Amino acid sequence: MTHQSSAVLRELLAPRSVAVVGASEVPGKVGTGVFRNLLGHGYSGALYAVNSKGGSVGGVRAYRRISEVPPGVELAVLCTPAHTIPGLIDECGAMGIRGVLVITAGFRELGEQGRELEAEVMRAVARYPGMRLLGPNCLGLIHPASRLSASFANGMPKVGSLAFLSQSGALCTALLDWSLREGIGFSHFVSVGNQLDVGFADLLDYLAQDPSTKSAMMYIESISKPHEFLEAAKRFASCKPLIAYKAGRFTQSAHAACSHTGAMAGEDSVYQAALDRCGVHRVMDMASMIQCAELLGQSAEQVRERVAIVTNAGGPGVMAVDSLLELKGTLATLSNTTLEKLESFLPPNWSRGNPVDVIGDADPERFSKAVQIVLDDPAVDTLLAILSPQSMTDPTTTAKEVAAVKTAPGKRLLASWLGGVSMQAGVEVLQLAGIRHFEFPEQAIRAIVDLVKDTARRVELVGEADEYASNGIRATAGGTEFKQSSFDETLAQCSVTTTLPKGSRYTMSEVESKRLLELYGLKVPGVSIARSADEAALVSERIGYPVVMKIYSMDITHKTDVGGVKLGLQTREQVQACYERMLEEVRLHCPSARLDGVTLQPMIDRTDCVELILGIKRDPTFGPVVMVGFGGVAAELFADRVVELLPIGPKRAKSMLKRLKCWPLLDGYRGKPRVAIDEAIKAIELVAILASQCEWIEELDINPLLVGPRGAIALDGRVVVKSPS
Amino acid sequence: MTHQSSAVLRELLAPRSVAVVGASEVPGKVGTGVFRNLLGHGYSGALYAVNSKGGSVGGVRAYRRISEVPPGVELAVLCTPAHTIPGLIDECGAMGIRGVLVITAGFRELGEQGRELEAEVMRAVARYPGMRLLGPNCLGLIHPASRLSASFANGMPKVGSLAFLSQSGALCTALLDWSLREGIGFSHFVSVGNQLDVGFADLLDYLAQDPSTKSAMMYIESISKPHEFLEAAKRFASCKPLIAYKAGRFTQSAHAACSHTGAMAGEDSVYQAALDRCGVHRVMDMASMIQCAELLGQSAEQVRERVAIVTNAGGPGVMAVDSLLELKGTLATLSNTTLEKLESFLPPNWSRGNPVDVIGDADPERFSKAVQIVLDDPAVDTLLAILSPQSMTDPTTTAKEVAAVKTAPGKRLLASWLGGVSMQAGVEVLQLAGIRHFEFPEQAIRAIVDLVKDTARRVELVGEADEYASNGIRATAGGTEFKQSSFDETLAQCSVTTTLPKGSRYTMSEVESKRLLELYGLKVPGVSIARSADEAALVSERIGYPVVMKIYSMDITHKTDVGGVKLGLQTREQVQACYERMLEEVRLHCPSARLDGVTLQPMIDRTDCVELILGIKRDPTFGPVVMVGFGGVAAELFADRVVELLPIGPKRAKSMLKRLKCWPLLDGYRGKPRVAIDEAIKAIELVAILASQCEWIEELDINPLLVGPRGAIALDGRVVVKSPS
Repeated sequence: MTHQSSAVLRELLAPRSVAVVGASEVPGKVGTGVFRNLLGHGYSGALYAVNSKGGSVGGVRAYRRISEVPPGVELAVLCTPAHTIPGLIDECGAMGIRGVLVITAGFRELGEQGRELEAEVMRAVARYPGMRLLGPNCLGLIHPASRLSASFANGMPKVGSLAFLSQSGALCTALLDWSLREGIGFSHFVSVGNQLDVGFADLLDYLAQDPSTKSAMMYIESISKPHEFLEAAKRFASCKPLIAYKAGRFTQSAHAACSHTGAMAGEDSVYQAALDRCGVHRVMDMASMIQCAELLGQSAEQVRERVAIVTNAGGPGVMAVDSLLELKGTLATLSNTTLEKLESFLPPNWSRGNPVDVIGDADPERFSKAVQIVLDDPAVDTLLAILSPQSMTDPTTTAKEVAAVKTAPGKRLLASWLGGVSMQAGVEVLQLAGIRHFEFPEQAIRAIVDLVKDTARRVELVGEADEYASNGIRATAGGTEFKQSSFDETLAQCSVTTTLPKGSRYTMSEVESKRLLELYGLKVPGVSIARSADEAALVSERIGYPVVMKIYSMDITHKTDVGGVKLGLQTREQVQACYERMLEEVRLHCPSARLDGVTLQPMIDRTDCVELILGIKRDPTFGPVVMVGFGGVAAELFADRVVELLPIGPKRAKSMLKRLKCWPLLDGYRGKPRVAIDEAIKAIELVAILASQCEWIEELDINPLLVGPRGAIALDGRVVVKSPS
Repeated sequence: MTHQSSAVLRELLAPRSVAVVGASEVPGKVGTGVFRNLLGHGYSGALYAVNSKGGSVGGVRAYRRISEVPPGVELAVLCTPAHTIPGLIDECGAMGIRGVLVITAGFRELGEQGRELEAEVMRAVARYPGMRLLGPNCLGLIHPASRLSASFANGMPKVGSLAFLSQSGALCTALLDWSLREGIGFSHFVSVGNQLDVGFADLLDYLAQDPSTKSAMMYIESISKPHEFLEAAKRFASCKPLIAYKAGRFTQSAHAACSHTGAMAGEDSVYQAALDRCGVHRVMDMASMIQCAELLGQSAEQVRERVAIVTNAGGPGVMAVDSLLELKGTLATLSNTTLEKLESFLPPNWSRGNPVDVIGDADPERFSKAVQIVLDDPAVDTLLAILSPQSMTDPTTTAKEVAAVKTAPGKRLLASWLGGVSMQAGVEVLQLAGIRHFEFPEQAIRAIVDLVKDTARRVELVGEADEYASNGIRATAGGTEFKQSSFDETLAQCSVTTTLPKGSRYTMSEVESKRLLELYGLKVPGVSIARSADEAALVSERIGYPVVMKIYSMDITHKTDVGGVKLGLQTREQVQACYERMLEEVRLHCPSARLDGVTLQPMIDRTDCVELILGIKRDPTFGPVVMVGFGGVAAELFADRVVELLPIGPKRAKSMLKRLKCWPLLDGYRGKPRVAIDEAIKAIELVAILASQCEWIEELDINPLLVGPRGAIALDGRVVVKSPS
């Protein structure tokens, strides 16, 4: 992000002066709510009201036009009807205002007319270099540090380090309301609306450099500029935690998400691949969003994994451990020193391990002393304190004493005071003390494990550089260079003589499909024709024994039934003898068929081989993606597949294979030889190059890609192409 | 459950008169808390205090001994030290008191001495016919209908129809505290403690017949009497919903759960099989427990599945649908009539389908009108109303109007008012109106789907009768009868001549293992010996072509290398010729080897066959269990396995196969022939009979059980036995 665009986004997101166009006192108007929020929350910058009627709004003088406002306004907030927006942008531009927030709705969400209006708006924006527009059709934005709420949402959250970006205004208002109760702090709170100009990518680029933002969370319904999004998300996630909820995971729900934006729904597995690719941690429900926000809102420090539990309740302690192990988290092993210290004051029936059950009759002192000792253990990163309201329990005093526990840097103390009425006061004490509280222990566990995984992913991301520096460089795999070739040229090479109408779909025959794969360097079984016994022997020598011989005749469909197939011919003599016998036998069965000789192909030895499937799909958002999976007869039943976006170099191809459940089969399973993994990797790379160069490929399936100790070969292939329109 | 034992449990769980032994005013004593609870919550029956010092407790006269209390006491609550309990039981018995609740701790949880004291207690109980004891080491019990809290827990929940039984006192107190806030009602609330006498099984049997109980929820750490438990749970679950949390799913957490009871941890998959077997719906976290409790506490009516969502917030509506589809729930399809009614008053940009997005500016009237119309649609069973706090939203008034919506019988209306501070008042309105509220929409969705699944399971359970009426009946499978045979007898039949020391483990050889399988009717490949060409032909005729011939010689290890193996012999002539040739050729290679003839076995044709694994494991709680799974090289990677408890008849054996992911492979996948499923079923049954008759089998593995279109055969087997000690 250039210095200039960063400066404009600062003016947009954290302006020092704001003018509200459409500021009003008429109840129910957007401009009324927005101006009241700016005034009411005590915005620390200069605030101007613009209302065509003049007068005053909320006791503030209202200018009739934005051009009358004193110079130096950084952000114009436009709340007037949609049709007035293009003209207002010109007025803002003339004043040198670069940050424009359009809250007004009534654009593309209303159809074609709205889209035209959006185009007009963008033409206006383009007239003023440096101007950036957020919205339209959004809730607005909040910048707690300057007590700025340029939105019609209620409430001003605490200042914090988490940025929230959302494509749903309603989710913004709900999260804001929760955060007020839970005390979650934010650096920025942005409703992105239609993302006509400023979108997720711009915001992530700005926030990656913003020192007040230490983590970000996004609610995404659809991504409009996938390449920019992925690059920006990767840049952000390589330095700060980035969490996303992607709405519309299934066709039915995606339909609900897209119906109002007109976006096309892609496959969720592709979205998953995209988010994984750029190191975004995906959450799957609202509770996880809020809970991750709670942890991130508290501190963006790296979350480490070893979890200890201190509890006055055996059962709930076990439940927390159940959930930790279910999620593959790590239960800390307490040091002997810690165990001895605990032993010295806990009752004889304490649990003597992690979870530390200090027994139901624990008073506040016993409980908090155990928390301090366990938290001080160098083998503990995060401590979850679970309190159940038993007869001797004093939840509020226990909360106070736990609040006084000293938390060393890099450690986290979380709490779960189980229950409703009698816990409320204690929960408030904990929240005031900045100790994150979760209603159920499993929620705390999930949030910890989520963020630990996220940290691990970011560490991986930082260490990784894509093998292809850019898409501009000519693609190579295993030393072979591939020249981009045109649709017609390539098809001609595949011997597809059909002239395809523009924009039509065509499914290539097996021979054509294999020819295309071969053109791109994939190994396919060669089929040769021989018209005499001697020629058959010569061909067999060339392709290598054992060979498969089949009768070659356009007139015969079921070759096996007429003695027209012979497997596993081992020698020159066998081939020659077989040729004569086969032609004789077939002639006996089919006296009228025209026999053109035989075809010969190498007999593939499947010993120690693994069948994979490898293919290309075209996603409406992210373009071509490559899929590899476990093949064979049970492939669909076990659905062991991995999808990746382009580009795919050898490192990523290998990681695709490693993510398959069947990976151990490739890697030398139970004493079997390791297959030629490098050949499988090369096949994935070649298919990825094919996908990136041949944009006219709609779908490609290699099933199976047979991978054995000596190599990888595409035994069957099917390609669907769409001619350029 | 007999009339008498049911009557005693009524006296124990819902007594008309209670005497508290150890009632006290000394702060911190258990008897103080218990007596205060009974007095303070206004127990509706007769209440007596017993304290060795006499005087009065809380203004109530204290008797010095229980024998001084007026006759007719139904429940004695014992709160005095552990060593006094046996004597007090005798006193209770002499008074004719049949219900005894021992809250006191200090028994088996303290080790051997405590176990001895428990035995003494049980000897005392046995002296008084009809007497039943709950505890010791428990929190006590609560019966809201008579405002009885014979416990040291705080608070009295509402009267409701859900019974809660828990092995964790701390979870009881936490759930109670939640229920006070959420307004969840209970019929019974029982902390079972050490289950010395009355356990889950007795309670479930009583509650199954208790008209005030419409559903039950259990927190289980370990099961002591598995057979009784399973039978009682099945009886309960066949008429009322039964939910369980089983703590200790993993070795580490099970250790934490068992360390204080000394119970042995079994495999979680076996617990799962046991709970599935008796129709118990298992929940996996505390939040799900509470949420299921909320729904069940509201009404135990059958939960049906078609879910509609009405919301003022597009994003959260999509999130709810995401979660519904993820959990494989059913999104209702609204009727045209409903869509037309909605169209008539909703703004033009409403969602025109389910989820029904009534748009962010909805007022209470628009929102509640949509709720009523959608709830009235015959295609809708459950409606989830989701409200987000937007600028025009009035959460409290909306709650009031939604509370006035008429809910037809059999329909459910749930709500999720998203947010914190501004939603609180509205949430309270909903709760007061009996509309169940969930903080996050996904929680409501999960609870609905959980209960729908539970309903489906119960319907299945009612329709099912085990094929074996009881374990007493002689086991048969496929018409074959099996006589129970002793360890030595069976081993002798397997030609195991080794004399095994008592209690020792012994792994049978492949031949011995296969012999045992064969004894029980499983098909194994037979190996026969022939010492002449004619005998070889005779044997081959008997076992059927094609056959495999191998040289039979103790001196030759690598038979193939010396021409000593011939596959696929098809005819009598081939066999005879091969015999002569093989002996000749082997003699050439190994002139000095002693040749004892050849072995012959059927050549197994693997075409269209599926490899399964089939075995027996012994669980510390539930005894022998049978496992069947997908076999072959990738078996462990995909872990496609099903575990079942005994007995297993053909119906259950088939359901095991059907639950496997690889089931379609058996059932004629993609044009392949269907395998002999009946033979696979029979193999499972036979293994189950073997498991139930041969208690000395520690482990049994058949890998693979080859199942093809013509039958099922155990190609390899391994049995570990333990001689009776």
